[in-house]
Amino acid sequence: MSSPASLPISRFPVPALADLPADIRERIVAVQEKSGFIPNVFLVLAHRPDEFRAFFAYHDALMDKPGNLTKAEREMIVVATSNANQCQYCVIAHGAILRIRAKNPLIADQVAINYRKADITPRQTAMLDFAMKVSFEANTVGDDDFAALAKHGFNDDDVWDIASIASFFALSNRMANVTRMRPNDEFYTLGR
Amino acid sequence: MSSPASLPISRFPVPALADLPADIRERIVAVQEKSGFIPNVFLVLAHRPDEFRAFFAYHDALMDKPGNLTKAEREMIVVATSNANQCQYCVIAHGAILRIRAKNPLIADQVAINYRKADITPRQTAMLDFAMKVSFEANTVGDDDFAALAKHGFNDDDVWDIASIASFFALSNRMANVTRMRPNDEFYTLGR
Amino acid sequence: MSSPASLPISRFPVPALADLPADIRERIVAVQEKSGFIPNVFLVLAHRPDEFRAFFAYHDALMDKPGNLTKAEREMIVVATSNANQCQYCVIAHGAILRIRAKNPLIADQVAINYRKADITPRQTAMLDFAMKVSFEANTVGDDDFAALAKHGFNDDDVWDIASIASFFALSNRMANVTRMRPNDEFYTLGR
Amino acid sequence: MSSPASLPISRFPVPALADLPADIRERIVAVQEKSGFIPNVFLVLAHRPDEFRAFFAYHDALMDKPGNLTKAEREMIVVATSNANQCQYCVIAHGAILRIRAKNPLIADQVAINYRKADITPRQTAMLDFAMKVSFEANTVGDDDFAALAKHGFNDDDVWDIASIASFFALSNRMANVTRMRPNDEFYTLGR
Amino acid sequence: MSSPASLPISRFPVPALADLPADIRERIVAVQEKSGFIPNVFLVLAHRPDEFRAFFAYHDALMDKPGNLTKAEREMIVVATSNANQCQYCVIAHGAILRIRAKNPLIADQVAINYRKADITPRQTAMLDFAMKVSFEANTVGDDDFAALAKHGFNDDDVWDIASIASFFALSNRMANVTRMRPNDEFYTLGR
Amino acid sequence: MSSPASLPISRFPVPALADLPADIRERIVAVQEKSGFIPNVFLVLAHRPDEFRAFFAYHDALMDKPGNLTKAEREMIVVATSNANQCQYCVIAHGAILRIRAKNPLIADQVAINYRKADITPRQTAMLDFAMKVSFEANTVGDDDFAALAKHGFNDDDVWDIASIASFFALSNRMANVTRMRPNDEFYTLGR
Repeated sequence: MSSPASLPISRFPVPALADLPADIRERIVAVQEKSGFIPNVFLVLAHRPDEFRAFFAYHDALMDKPGNLTKAEREMIVVATSNANQCQYCVIAHGAILRIRAKNPLIADQVAINYRKADITPRQTAMLDFAMKVSFEANTVGDDDFAALAKHGFNDDDVWDIASIASFFALSNRMANVTRMRPNDEFYTLGR
Repeated sequence: MSSPASLPISRFPVPALADLPADIRERIVAVQEKSGFIPNVFLVLAHRPDEFRAFFAYHDALMDKPGNLTKAEREMIVVATSNANQCQYCVIAHGAILRIRAKNPLIADQVAINYRKADITPRQTAMLDFAMKVSFEANTVGDDDFAALAKHGFNDDDVWDIASIASFFALSNRMANVTRMRPNDEFYTLGR
Repeated sequence: MSSPASLPISRFPVPALADLPADIRERIVAVQEKSGFIPNVFLVLAHRPDEFRAFFAYHDALMDKPGNLTKAEREMIVVATSNANQCQYCVIAHGAILRIRAKNPLIADQVAINYRKADITPRQTAMLDFAMKVSFEANTVGDDDFAALAKHGFNDDDVWDIASIASFFALSNRMANVTRMRPNDEFYTLGR
Repeated sequence: MSSPASLPISRFPVPALADLPADIRERIVAVQEKSGFIPNVFLVLAHRPDEFRAFFAYHDALMDKPGNLTKAEREMIVVATSNANQCQYCVIAHGAILRIRAKNPLIADQVAINYRKADITPRQTAMLDFAMKVSFEANTVGDDDFAALAKHGFNDDDVWDIASIASFFALSNRMANVTRMRPNDEFYTLGR
Repeated sequence: MSSPASLPISRFPVPALADLPADIRERIVAVQEKSGFIPNVFLVLAHRPDEFRAFFAYHDALMDKPGNLTKAEREMIVVATSNANQCQYCVIAHGAILRIRAKNPLIADQVAINYRKADITPRQTAMLDFAMKVSFEANTVGDDDFAALAKHGFNDDDVWDIASIASFFALSNRMANVTRMRPNDEFYTLGR
Repeated sequence: MSSPASLPISRFPVPALADLPADIRERIVAVQEKSGFIPNVFLVLAHRPDEFRAFFAYHDALMDKPGNLTKAEREMIVVATSNANQCQYCVIAHGAILRIRAKNPLIADQVAINYRKADITPRQTAMLDFAMKVSFEANTVGDDDFAALAKHGFNDDDVWDIASIASFFALSNRMANVTRMRPNDEFYTLGR
């Protein structure tokens, strides 16, 4: 096996579960029970408990809330923008979640590499065009973008959702790259 | 006066204070009492209470916590990266805070436009070089960057701080641009 | 005060007024009498008298002549393109002039950071879109650009004016950056 | 299954095996017998028999010949540069081959997304740094690059090999993107 | 004369004609007889006989075959994309061929520097717009591009031709830059 | 002949010699007598007499004055930066002047396409490296650049010269592109 458990998951210190504040430890244990393993992002970010709490509160507010975007669509935004940002952790971990949410073993790799050629709807392509614009030139976003999305049935609150997810992962991708956050081996095959 | 109070501060609906959840209203009122006005970011983001809570929890965890970076240095990171992202709200609002924190009426404009020519120390220039790298090519961050920062006395946790602030404002800049968040007129002259 | 008079205004030698050719000294004294101080660009460029004369002759031919562009609009072009070129001197000095010409204390910072969100007219936004194109990809300028500007009432000579101002400050921004030209402290607050 | 066999593999006509010149048909049948399926690149490019012959002759001259680069290393070059070029076919097909050649189920995704964080040797990182330079700024390649590679034990002919592979896939990536070449479903899971 | 025959034509070893495999030597001799000199690309690439054979087979399949693109148009694609890639050999050698094919002594320099201002037809400009897109952002090529070209009378196979030539010279430009391939002095004046 | 005299040399009105102010007409006639033809830049810019006077005063102050840079070296700066800016007029006209000044028929094309591969000295390569930095990222110019140039014997005033020439042609290239300034046919072959 090429990536033994002994390979570091962060270039920063990783706290032991036992040393963490109770609320953080409980959240991590809950994830572990549900997933069968602890995604490394939880351990890496636990180095900073206050930032950890805010990060996951933000994440949940965007990714778990009700809304017109399906959960698979939200993951598409993560996967497409994260590959453009060359974020290994986010593409591999959220690629797994996308495969599961979409019940489609091919979709994550397609969306990561070039969403314009992926097996998705024109509406989803328009969503990703906008997400990429938010990631790379949000300064030029304007009325035309809202109009283009409206043609595909996205209302203003949907646009906020797309923008927020792309923006949150702009943050997340940068932290994963700086911390050298390592994806768990489990993610590579989940949902394939 | 060119920007009457009637100009919109967001392209999304802005909630009335009275309609907000109590915790959010209290936070906003507290800021208003301290600053003399309500910075528009609070009202614009209150459109989404859960995201609001996470956003400001994250903000406070980075900007208000103890640490080796002075508060003025943290604001320098915000101002330099936000101008590079062409984020009007963040440059103008945090420019004001930087002038106040640094007790220097010139520093914010200098750092915003070209920090390499600003009246700052070589250590601060190195800090901003790294912050800009996190903003625009975090994928290439590596050992050399940590070594370069260490030469200026930044330890690994300081690097985390610089990276986190640059990453958080990567998020913030994008949301401000998409929402067309308008800076309060008051910020333009504060600290000059 | 953070920027005492003793800080250098150029990385090149700065001539004493008394040592300058009479015509240059007279021009500088005239500016000083009108403005109350000598803008550093005059002293920095006086290192090369012939280039000084051509520079200011060109400047005056573009910025002071009659024409359909208001003087405030010409300054908008300078401020928007100079921030994109990260030219501290030009943004700060011409930002001051723009505030005065437009009688608007907010306009310069807005235009510098992201003119698309500034309190300007659609016609002025189109003017700045074109000015930025001249600054960064003049090679692709073509009939479509002239047609787009004509829709906003700009005739061909107006387009020449926009292009010339953007082009002249392409020169100016580069020289200010190479000479490390320092903006006078006075500019930061003029017109606010 | 999300990508039924009926989805087009090219936006250009795809010839039937029976209609192909004998030498091309034989080559394709040989691949099919070895792999268990026909990789779509063979069918898509068979639209132009002469180009097909030259393409695969070039491919084989680079990828199958003896040399100091291991076959896995050659595939790393393909995978890293092809993701940077957003070429779905090449990343997915050659990612599969890389997993098999390296006997490592994780390596292809790591190298595709951000080779700087992959489980590879410093020598391989230097090889990929150079391959990316050839892909995106070959005009600046010079003595320093050859010297940097020599430090890792690459002789001049090894450098030619790296450069040739990156160059050949510069061609291949562009044709796959223009033809909208679809990766076979089989590639997604091979070697995982 | 500034470039005596003694200046190296490659940074790699250049084989003597006598040492080459017969088929390669024959091809080179045939070119020499036709042109009056041996274009250096033949000698530089002969360092690798198998790659040589594939390279020229590919070249001939694209540049010499019948088709709707005139031979001059094919050379325009080479010249425009090669200058954008800063490939000295390809611009100078194929510039000469373009001048000859087009019977126009000015066309090559015009197309190389800025084809948008060249003395060519709108149809040829559209062809070069697409060729440049293939060279620099093939990942975004889609239906709109095919439609735009169809308006100028290009059918799908013509689009394949344009794309293939741009792709092949993406390869060729990179190899010429890495090998430091020197153009023969003869090319500079041919066809002027 | 492919570019008959009837092709427009500007998209703006071109004044008749007889209608020009005497000083401008005299300058143009003097050039015509010396060169045998009127370079189009004189006629195109004469549309604006005041700008014409400033432009050529600036040009002469940089290109004709005494100094450590040879006249050929100054033209190299023009040619290299103008091709990077895709300015047809400047590359072709100043390419001719460079060939004449350097008494080298090959140098202009080499420097235009990729100066790193041109038959020039390491000192000249360093000069052009800096000129390109001034053209494309003057905001990052700093002490290191002056030190690198000093190693090749360039003093600070030489650096000013390089920077000024690159800056002046930043202006000139943009105006030539916007006016669609056509190079005279004569330039293509001068000095070859």
